[in-house]
Amino acid sequence: MEKKSLQELRKLLEELKTVKKTLVSKSEVYKPYIKIIDGIEYISIEDLTKGQFVTNERYICTLNNGEDIIREKIKKAKKDGSAVIVIPVTKDNEVIVTVEPRVFTEKTVGVGFPAGYIEDGEKPEVAALRELQEEIGVIPEKLIPLASFYQDEGISAAKNTAYLALGCTEGYEKNPDEGEFVEYFKCSFNEVLELQQDGYIEGSNSVIAIEKAKQYFTKTGKVKRYK
Amino acid sequence: MEKKSLQELRKLLEELKTVKKTLVSKSEVYKPYIKIIDGIEYISIEDLTKGQFVTNERYICTLNNGEDIIREKIKKAKKDGSAVIVIPVTKDNEVIVTVEPRVFTEKTVGVGFPAGYIEDGEKPEVAALRELQEEIGVIPEKLIPLASFYQDEGISAAKNTAYLALGCTEGYEKNPDEGEFVEYFKCSFNEVLELQQDGYIEGSNSVIAIEKAKQYFTKTGKVKRYK
Repeated sequence: MEKKSLQELRKLLEELKTVKKTLVSKSEVYKPYIKIIDGIEYISIEDLTKGQFVTNERYICTLNNGEDIIREKIKKAKKDGSAVIVIPVTKDNEVIVTVEPRVFTEKTVGVGFPAGYIEDGEKPEVAALRELQEEIGVIPEKLIPLASFYQDEGISAAKNTAYLALGCTEGYEKNPDEGEFVEYFKCSFNEVLELQQDGYIEGSNSVIAIEKAKQYFTKTGKVKRYK
Repeated sequence: MEKKSLQELRKLLEELKTVKKTLVSKSEVYKPYIKIIDGIEYISIEDLTKGQFVTNERYICTLNNGEDIIREKIKKAKKDGSAVIVIPVTKDNEVIVTVEPRVFTEKTVGVGFPAGYIEDGEKPEVAALRELQEEIGVIPEKLIPLASFYQDEGISAAKNTAYLALGCTEGYEKNPDEGEFVEYFKCSFNEVLELQQDGYIEGSNSVIAIEKAKQYFTKTGKVKRYK
């Protein structure tokens, strides 16, 4: 990897790593809402999910073979949590890579690509274009769908779509979500492969996007001709 | 796809599809434990996660740049939920594919590969061998690690490992988990690719395993020579 890119990456990784994690509540119980009755801790059903991002639902499912099974579904911000992830490539064959806190991973910070949740009634490709502009201020010439897949099919209905965004022009106005610390930098596609090899890119969405994007790059890491 | 395999697959898909889903509780509140006090529904903290598979923890995380962020982590059966997934191939170049209920997906049933959670203190490769025998009764000659990745890095510490199991011998004693309805059938690797193309294989773990396994198969779908 080029020394300058590597230095920049290391700086971002250092900046966004987690130095302290404090457990404030377990299983969606947000402490301020707990009430003690006869020495037992209670919480009202209404307060239970206040301010919670991940919530759960439990279902009894009857299979066609007559058997009943119980399955739990997680929701994110009360929705299925379907998301898009986009590998953006500039006209100069540079891939724009994001760095953001991934507090529960070993490194506590992860390298990946612009991504975000699909809004109500939004088409995945619209979400992809929106996230590109909001997160990194780019608009592409062409958006290629790479793959659709369930994030965690046993416990979620989240179906994600990965894209490759070619011919990206930078410099459009960004509009990042509050409380998100997403940084980014540019490197070649072959350097992306190096970063994956070295364990910096470890999210399932990113891994799938990279695998499916390979066919659009030459061995030297340039984008193959496209219309 | 060969007509016989396809018929067999359709039968399994039909058998395991979900015909009815009943929501029994939301956000980990299992109704029988709810107590009504002054007209408000309460649940004791102790009862909150009784019998629950997915539970949550909420953390305040301090980044190296001085900023605090709140992140929630899901746990499965009180653990991180790290798992293994294995593509088993017999000595006759047949891939053993599983069919199981995926109640929250559009089809409600999914095609994939033997998989399961890593037990406490267990090495991933040991878990892979255990799951192969428990779920489908096979022992392989060689286990090749294909990829390691986080299942859903924003909300989970689950780190999965995908394997390719070559030279599998069938017929060992199985020991399936209770309440799991995992069926399986055999087809060629090229038929696996067809199944993926046709939208039967949609889980992120399976998609990654297939992508990374491709390099070990010839164009005609046979396993390349291995030691």
